[in-house]
Amino acid sequence: MTEKEIIERIRELFPQRAATVGIGDDAAVVGEQVITTDMLIEDVDFTRAVPVESIGRKSLAVNLSDLAAMGAIPAYAVVALGIPEWLMNGIDPFLRALADYARQYDIDLIGGDLSRAEKLIIAITATGWVESRPLLRSGAHPGDRLYVSRPLGAAAAGLELLTRWKSIEPPSDLPYAQREFAASAIRRLIEPEPEVKLGIALADLVQITSCIDISDGLSTDLHHLCDASGTGAEIERQRIPVFPDLLGSGTALGIDARAAVLHGGEEYALLFTSAMRESELSTRLGRPVYAIGKMASEKGVRIDGQALEPGGFDHFAVK
Amino acid sequence: MTEKEIIERIRELFPQRAATVGIGDDAAVVGEQVITTDMLIEDVDFTRAVPVESIGRKSLAVNLSDLAAMGAIPAYAVVALGIPEWLMNGIDPFLRALADYARQYDIDLIGGDLSRAEKLIIAITATGWVESRPLLRSGAHPGDRLYVSRPLGAAAAGLELLTRWKSIEPPSDLPYAQREFAASAIRRLIEPEPEVKLGIALADLVQITSCIDISDGLSTDLHHLCDASGTGAEIERQRIPVFPDLLGSGTALGIDARAAVLHGGEEYALLFTSAMRESELSTRLGRPVYAIGKMASEKGVRIDGQALEPGGFDHFAVK
Repeated sequence: MTEKEIIERIRELFPQRAATVGIGDDAAVVGEQVITTDMLIEDVDFTRAVPVESIGRKSLAVNLSDLAAMGAIPAYAVVALGIPEWLMNGIDPFLRALADYARQYDIDLIGGDLSRAEKLIIAITATGWVESRPLLRSGAHPGDRLYVSRPLGAAAAGLELLTRWKSIEPPSDLPYAQREFAASAIRRLIEPEPEVKLGIALADLVQITSCIDISDGLSTDLHHLCDASGTGAEIERQRIPVFPDLLGSGTALGIDARAAVLHGGEEYALLFTSAMRESELSTRLGRPVYAIGKMASEKGVRIDGQALEPGGFDHFAVK
Repeated sequence: MTEKEIIERIRELFPQRAATVGIGDDAAVVGEQVITTDMLIEDVDFTRAVPVESIGRKSLAVNLSDLAAMGAIPAYAVVALGIPEWLMNGIDPFLRALADYARQYDIDLIGGDLSRAEKLIIAITATGWVESRPLLRSGAHPGDRLYVSRPLGAAAAGLELLTRWKSIEPPSDLPYAQREFAASAIRRLIEPEPEVKLGIALADLVQITSCIDISDGLSTDLHHLCDASGTGAEIERQRIPVFPDLLGSGTALGIDARAAVLHGGEEYALLFTSAMRESELSTRLGRPVYAIGKMASEKGVRIDGQALEPGGFDHFAVK
């Protein structure tokens, strides 16, 4: 079974009576409340090469990104922790980083559950509130512009380099520019920045028709957006903003920049649609956002006229 | 660090602004909403000897029991699943059992997260609503009667037998009574019944002063109740209701019945306090509940005059 098939089965089995928006968006919505859950598991989602402080922050960041994709204001969260022997001495910096990060995003951690485990497991459930309306995956219209909130490709590059070096420190004998690029890319991977403020601002703009966060990769998440909206999309390769120096130093380091940009997961940028023009929308938001194409009535995703299949991460694809 | 020390550290680090009741009770309370999270991990909380249907139901039951302890009406839940290879073929019965159980308790599963994992991990966050007030651990007064909602000792006996036999089926050469007892005890362990209806009824009775569910064992959870209420407690051994045939067949099977009753975890019975008399309270509730002692102004827990230390399960006690 693929992840999609399992989700389909869950959708069939679980009635969604209480939910305004149930299974199948970035988060569920019940009245004005948004609720989302994400679990990070050692050796699946991170390794011990990553500092415990970064793991703590990222475990909350991935949930905040789901709230951001719904345009929700963070409210509170609960944390279930599976704590392995190796973390017992590092638990204080881990908890402190998590607490500081929660404070930074104004979300309260109000409950939890502790277990012993062989590997570190962090399952966080975060709630938020929508003031006007939730942003959904399902509202895009053919002709809408398709936007991405920031340059892409760093997280996939960071993952490849971290996997290669098994350390967050680039080798000291690398040329300076490559070392700088590598450090930034790895930082982007292990310290993702959820677009919480942007999501709230987008929900306030009635002209925004749909939104999703890029957790599985641009190609995969754009397919999700298109499937939910019943549309297709046409994107232009040269309009997609690329993480600084990915083409230069990234390529020199052996990164496939095209794949990193189009298919790389864990970006936590927002992907959203609106009829508004780029300059007008950027002005309204007071920050740059990038129009990379348009929604189309013809199903499927095309890049420069060629079909773009979902190439991102499916947790269950390789059986 | 013990579990208690880690929880203390979390309480120091995490401000509880949004919460009416934050870290330290069975669930957190924000306004009228109650929220709780619990994670079950393969080879920590269960083994593959347990049918996947039972694992699915129990993963929700432990959360429902926390809602019950707060007197909350179940509302909705989200599920984070770490799915190992071995479950891929059994995922449908697992999901179906979870869905049926959710329907039985009128709680909607409205969202989730799927990961691949080496071991099965189920982290559920459940929410509920309190109509009048939440039941807390902290309201017991000296002189209040201490109640338990049903006979104790089966879960610990079931755990010991399941660990011994590595199967939920008792050996066929056991005497009939022992086989029956063993099957019931194992069933109680793997199919716990959360006291959801009772919890809601208790919250509606203003005479109920405090409540907790017995997840870590009577002795440990009674200490939690006393600590939160600033009281002690005196219990009488002969008044504690004992699971049928634990003293007979259980003892014959080598179970330490006294330890099972006093210290056995995973009971998911409710432990609560009220000035009301047992006959009056049972009549009001329309079901038996059992007065096992009284709350005292002198700190500490005593059984028949002797100190009773917390003997239940501390997830972090053995470092």
